[in-house]
Order: sequence, then structure tokens, then C-alpha cells
Amino acid sequence: MSGTLKHDTETNITLIGTGTIGLSFAAFHLTHLASPSQLTIYDTRSDAAQYVQENLPKFFKDQDQSSSPSFSDVKIASSLHEAVENASIIQESGPENASFKLNLWAEVEKYAPKDTLLWSSTSGIPASQQICKMQDTSRVLVVHPYNPPHIMPLLELVPSPETSEDVIKRTQEFWRARGRVPIHIKKESTGFVANRLAFALLREAVHLVDQGVVSVEELDQIVQTSMGPRWAVAGPFKSYHAGGGPAGLEGFFKNIGGTVQDCWANAGTPNVGDGWEKKIFWEAKEAYGTVDVAERDKITRRLLQVLEEEKKITGNA
Amino acid sequence: MSGTLKHDTETNITLIGTGTIGLSFAAFHLTHLASPSQLTIYDTRSDAAQYVQENLPKFFKDQDQSSSPSFSDVKIASSLHEAVENASIIQESGPENASFKLNLWAEVEKYAPKDTLLWSSTSGIPASQQICKMQDTSRVLVVHPYNPPHIMPLLELVPSPETSEDVIKRTQEFWRARGRVPIHIKKESTGFVANRLAFALLREAVHLVDQGVVSVEELDQIVQTSMGPRWAVAGPFKSYHAGGGPAGLEGFFKNIGGTVQDCWANAGTPNVGDGWEKKIFWEAKEAYGTVDVAERDKITRRLLQVLEEEKKITGNA
Repeated sequence: MSGTLKHDTETNITLIGTGTIGLSFAAFHLTHLASPSQLTIYDTRSDAAQYVQENLPKFFKDQDQSSSPSFSDVKIASSLHEAVENASIIQESGPENASFKLNLWAEVEKYAPKDTLLWSSTSGIPASQQICKMQDTSRVLVVHPYNPPHIMPLLELVPSPETSEDVIKRTQEFWRARGRVPIHIKKESTGFVANRLAFALLREAVHLVDQGVVSVEELDQIVQTSMGPRWAVAGPFKSYHAGGGPAGLEGFFKNIGGTVQDCWANAGTPNVGDGWEKKIFWEAKEAYGTVDVAERDKITRRLLQVLEEEKKITGNA
Repeated sequence: MSGTLKHDTETNITLIGTGTIGLSFAAFHLTHLASPSQLTIYDTRSDAAQYVQENLPKFFKDQDQSSSPSFSDVKIASSLHEAVENASIIQESGPENASFKLNLWAEVEKYAPKDTLLWSSTSGIPASQQICKMQDTSRVLVVHPYNPPHIMPLLELVPSPETSEDVIKRTQEFWRARGRVPIHIKKESTGFVANRLAFALLREAVHLVDQGVVSVEELDQIVQTSMGPRWAVAGPFKSYHAGGGPAGLEGFFKNIGGTVQDCWANAGTPNVGDGWEKKIFWEAKEAYGTVDVAERDKITRRLLQVLEEEKKITGNA
């Protein structure tokens, strides 16, 4: 996919945090920046430089090794001040706790240029809970990836009510120019959108396995051979709109709205900690052991490439 | 995918009902049977022969036309008796009402050979509610496809408590030999499994659009660029098991079980008829008009081909 994307020789990107998400973002930027030296990584761990040199190359394992960038030119900052002072974009992927983020942004604001975009990878802490110690509260928004971000196209942009339109617009433009799909979420809801949707299905999945209707592995096979490939091509509304024939989504609900409602009324409502965990964790371990993520990523790349090609042919998809 | 599949010169298949599902099953069998004359179609409509000749070829629209089979050799039966007397497999895709199916199977039993497999495509009427008028109640089970069955690999096999093990086994073997993925559902639950899962996500999707968090089209884009392609490669349990690192699914819940529970506790519970319909039906119509299903199917075939190739390489996927 990277062949058609624009490099930008003036964008300096600083990533804070070297967990899986942080390093995956690093891998993405390394394949899109003109030079690895435009990327700065900061982490409070004392062995940050060594850790990055050892772990970042792993994100290129599923690809042709000749296309790997030069990791040694990535800058590893030794202080937050140094990390952010020349950044045009700062994305934090630090610990998921509000006070860490509150203090981080207050510090970042002291040293970063006034127009630097400030992004949080958080999956659970809304921007409005991160900005309370800042002078200018209009600059931070959530840019939540779907893991792993160096592969998956989606970015959920979730501004707080105080985030400026200009900040949102520049963030959208950045990702669109790099072939990604940034979606502007209009309200700060718990878990944003992608996770809420996925977890709703997961809850019913937990219920059905817990009830002995299917096993963990059978449930995965069902999804992999039905709604997985279907929703890769057309999301749920588009699919059911097509399923309703000329009458669209309305026709779909006219035809099988009764079954839909029966399923909704009958849906399971397990909670975390209810006791289903033992069986389901054990079944997952038995079925999968340790998942070969590089293999999964290689296949995912191929699928996304097909979708990308078809999008170019048809103008949509 | 059809290149490696076995043809069976002794299997006679009878399909009852010429709706979308019935004709899509016909399209599947035509590409797998040794001869189109092994396929018999029956429908009570008086213009059945003409209707099939006109509509069945449409299911090959997204494919190279030279690979289309000879439709004129398909048998169109003029009575139920004629339709079933030589059948080794009978699949009904008739109207979704229990009394139609009750009476149909009682009639079929009179004329069909004793070892014919009897399958229902129903998405809502369990086998146990279809067999009450039969002498031998061990022969009927639900074989529920994911639409359209000539493309999608999944078949949910849902026996009643009275269905024999032999009938289930022969049904599994039939579909496996043809490269499909038949999953044996252990309990007759409302909507079986695939629809329950998909509708659980759809419910949250309706909630989020209804609340103004995203539009219909944005929601579809989110799914198409995240869990769609992901779940095509690895179902939800496998994905989250991988996401938890070496600790697997247990590790995943340890890390973000709090966010999962927050999403579950916060999930929307709209019902059919609650009033969200007007806005959402309208948005779907505005966004998509009439969906080009042939284009969707062509892209889906390409994705499934990639997944099939990878399965052969890795032995799983």
C-alpha cells in the first residue's frame, strides 16, 4: 500500500511510550516518513534505546526483510523536553491511567511548539479527562488505533468538546494522506465505537460458549467464514441494506425483523467476573496455544491489499 | 476454489423453493455436481421453469461467463412427488412459517427414499418444530447458510434432539468434501449462532447511530477497516487471545477487562419498533441507494480465495 503515499520531509513525529501500540505506530511511521530521523521515541524506562533497537524490528517480521527501514537513525530522546521541542505531532501510548496523562500533557505543553498536534492512543480515557491541567485545552484528542496500527487502517478520532475544529481537520488530513481511514467520532462514549461494537459481539460469544451451544474454536470458525469476510467488504448496515433487496434496510427489517428482535430479547448478558472465565480461557489456550501474530499479520495485509485494489477499481468498496 | 473439490456422480439434489436462498444453493451445486441434470428444483409457482431459467444465471454475474454451467439441463419438477422420489438430498428454502414446513416434511416423507437427507434453510424455525407430523423424526436438521450460500463458506448444522448421529455425520461430510465449513451447533437456540452474534453487534450499531455518535456510513467504514478484516483472519476469541500476549485471553481480560465491562454495562438496548428506524433506514438509503451485489460478491470471492490459499500454506488460518 505504501507505494502511492506521500512522504513529508517536514513532519517530525514524537511517540511517547514503547509498549506494543507505541512500537506499532513507530513501525507505521518508519514506512511513511522520508527519513527515520524524523521519528523520535521517548520512554521513561532507562534502557529505552536498547529496548527499541531490539523490539522495533519485530514489527517487520511478516514482511520482506529488504523493505525494513534503518532503525538506528530513529532518535531516542533522553528527556521529555528533548522529545517534544521540535515535534509537529506527539502521540502518547503510555499507561492507561488518567493522572499519568493529565501530568504528561501539562509537561508537554511547556516544551512543545504551539501548533503541535497532541494525540492520545487511549482506549478508555476520553480527551476531556486528560486536559484539565493544560493552559490550552483545544489541542488534545484521542487517536485510537485498531491493534496493530502499522497494519489496520482504522483510526478513531475522538475530540473532547474543547478540541478545535482546526486540530481535528489537520489530524484527519494527516491520516488520509497516508492511506488510512480516520473516522471522527462525534461524542465521547465509553470505549468509543469499534470496541463497543466488537465487545457487544464478544459478549454474545461468551454467552453462547458458556451455554454449551458451540466451543471457542467453533465460534471463531463461524465468524471467520461468515461475518468476518462479509464485513471486510461491506459493514453491517450496508450488508443488511443489500439483504433487503430494493427496499433496503427497511425491507430487511420487514422480512426478518421478528428474528432480529427475538435474538435481541434473548441475548446473553454475562459480566466480567461472572464465572464463565475459567472454561473459556482454558478452551482458548487449548485451541490456540500461542498465536503466530506474524502469520496473522501477513494474511491481514494480503486481505487489505485486495480491498485497496478493489477500492481503486470501483471508487468505493 | 472449485478446482480441488470432488464431483459425485451419484448424488441427486432436490431444492424446494426458488427464493434468493434456494437459487443461490442451486448456483453452488451447479458448480460442484458432475452434471446439471443431478439438480432438481421444485416450487409451487406455476411459472417455475421460466422463473429459474431467467433468474438462476444472475448468480453467475460476478464470474467469468465462460465458467457458467448449462442451466437448461437442470430439472424442474412439476410435483413434489416427482421432485423428491430420486433425491439423495432435499433442502427446503420455502416460506418461513412452521406449518408450511410441518406439512412439507410429512409429504416429502411419503415419496422420498428412506436414507435421503432432509435439510431446512430456515433462519428461525428449529428442526424440532418442523418434524411433529413425521413418522421418522430422526432425518431433518437445519442447514442454515450465511447469505449468499454459493459464495459464503459457513453452514450452521442445527439438529433437533431427535436427529440421528448418522444424519449429522453424513451432512458434515457432504459439505466438507465440497470445501465448505459446516459447524455442528449443539443446542437449538433462537437465531442459532451466526445471526445472534451479528445481531448483537447490529444492536449496538443501531444504538450508536441513534445517539448521534457516528453515521450509518461511518459505522460501516469503522467495521470494514477494523474487525471485518481482522475477524476474516482470526475470530474474536482467537484475536483477543493473541491480544493478551503469552497470557492469552486471560491476559487480555486482565489488561482491559475493565473497559470491556464498562462497554457491556453501558451497551444500548434498542428494540425493533422503538422509533430509531426512520433515521437509520433513511441514512442507509442516502448512503448506498441500491447496493451492487455482484461487485460485493466478486470482492468477497477474492478475499475467500486469499484465505483459502493461506489455509493451504499454513494448515490453519
